[in-house]
Amino acid sequence: MRERELLRHIYERSADLAGEGVIRVGPGDDCAVIRDSAGASLLLTVDQLVAGRHFDPERTPIDLVARKAIARSVSDIAAMAGTPICALATGAIPDCYAHADELFDRMATLARAFGCPLIGGDIAGADGPMVLTCTIVGVCRTTRGPVLRADARPGDLVCVTGRLGGSLESGRHLTFEPRVAEAVALSESLADRLGAMMDLSDGLGIDASRLAAASGVRLEIEAGRVPRHEGVADWRRAASDGEDYELLFTVRDRAGVERLELPRGTPLSVIGRVTEGAGCVIIDERGHEHDGADLGWDHGA
Amino acid sequence: MRERELLRHIYERSADLAGEGVIRVGPGDDCAVIRDSAGASLLLTVDQLVAGRHFDPERTPIDLVARKAIARSVSDIAAMAGTPICALATGAIPDCYAHADELFDRMATLARAFGCPLIGGDIAGADGPMVLTCTIVGVCRTTRGPVLRADARPGDLVCVTGRLGGSLESGRHLTFEPRVAEAVALSESLADRLGAMMDLSDGLGIDASRLAAASGVRLEIEAGRVPRHEGVADWRRAASDGEDYELLFTVRDRAGVERLELPRGTPLSVIGRVTEGAGCVIIDERGHEHDGADLGWDHGA
Repeated sequence: MRERELLRHIYERSADLAGEGVIRVGPGDDCAVIRDSAGASLLLTVDQLVAGRHFDPERTPIDLVARKAIARSVSDIAAMAGTPICALATGAIPDCYAHADELFDRMATLARAFGCPLIGGDIAGADGPMVLTCTIVGVCRTTRGPVLRADARPGDLVCVTGRLGGSLESGRHLTFEPRVAEAVALSESLADRLGAMMDLSDGLGIDASRLAAASGVRLEIEAGRVPRHEGVADWRRAASDGEDYELLFTVRDRAGVERLELPRGTPLSVIGRVTEGAGCVIIDERGHEHDGADLGWDHGA
Repeated sequence: MRERELLRHIYERSADLAGEGVIRVGPGDDCAVIRDSAGASLLLTVDQLVAGRHFDPERTPIDLVARKAIARSVSDIAAMAGTPICALATGAIPDCYAHADELFDRMATLARAFGCPLIGGDIAGADGPMVLTCTIVGVCRTTRGPVLRADARPGDLVCVTGRLGGSLESGRHLTFEPRVAEAVALSESLADRLGAMMDLSDGLGIDASRLAAASGVRLEIEAGRVPRHEGVADWRRAASDGEDYELLFTVRDRAGVERLELPRGTPLSVIGRVTEGAGCVIIDERGHEHDGADLGWDHGA
């Protein structure tokens, strides 16, 4: 099963949903967006954490399982420049697992620390690997409103927060800090000069290709400008490792970006530009173009 | 693992959440309730459907798997007298399962038919039984607002919609109609004379005990008045079979109830009364009292 291909089918069938009733943005972005009774935007996202796929059930401390379950969904809220306000969690838990109470206790504590207390959920026994889900509701407190994947325009600069690569080997996939404060700061400082945004979960190359497709533009990224974590051998690893949970975004004003200071001293790098066309290419130091769609994970493919 | 006991621990630890920030009702009721930016109530619920626990993966048509995944959460919205407006779904799907696309297609179609289009979700591969979740957002369109489990008072009548028992054997657990229209009609007709309400998922006895505990009252149910589906042998089966997804509610005005006609001709029965005290008893025709807490499922116990 190709998960992303399956999701693409589902998104295509739901393409007519946006604008129907309370729905502003349907499936396919980092969050769905609905209108509340006053017309304000509410963000909704859900993500799964499957033992053996997203964490090693033998070796991962309960604390970090709980953290990743919550933080992945918080990162989706950040990707829209939203702020999480509450969460629901489910667990399908193997009958032999003795720490379910501790796990949910940790999830509740961490969710509250991320600003989205756990206000509901469900627990069921299951004869298989643990499957956790976390649904988060978020709001947009900035005037810019939710930042979509579809708003990149030719002429924009392509930027990324933090550094990329080596997330699985280093354990950062369990401990990353969702970029909520950074996204809100970008949205407040840049307002309409902030173009499209998403969080990087499957690798810069493939994720940037998705942003390009959503916006109907082409992204040109310079390999030499992709910021790498220490120990990440080359740009190819940085662009394809996945699970970075950094923000990829586009900006309409170079001067604005270069002056920006992000919260917590988080680095900000300009890595490329948006042009007319389609797809994402990463251009190496010899000038060779590499197709972004080949760099990253297409889960299950 | 005793799921309900575990959930009870979680609820107890979250008891201070109600009133914090946007939270009106935290964990423990059929839905959580938050305030939107205009102060209106939004309902949130999530439920899981686990292959081998909630349906037979060998025999259940895809259509009915999809239906139950959505309808269980819709029933939670009905239990608060809400109306569902949108949904998110996840699937942890065995790698060998060839019908994931069809399953999600059916879930999307059914969710839309229930008034809550699927606007987001996630799919992951898993080496175990299929685990589906459905998160639903609902609104309260009636002036009565969300109907909680905690609002039964001594002197109320205890009522139930439809008939009970035999849901698993008959297959009704796959085809039941969530009581959204009935709940809205009750809420509109009765307004403040409607007391507490919940949907019956684990069996009348145990669920009524939970309503009694939430309200700090005692429920006395007359066995002979419990409405049974055809083929359900006795009151004990009707009170303990579970998965009825009918509404259990209390009312402050006998005359009002007896005049009520529910949508779709759904039956409405007065089955008992609320008194001072604690717990739920079901009184048989000889006058013997049976503890409701012993009648029903405590999953995994």
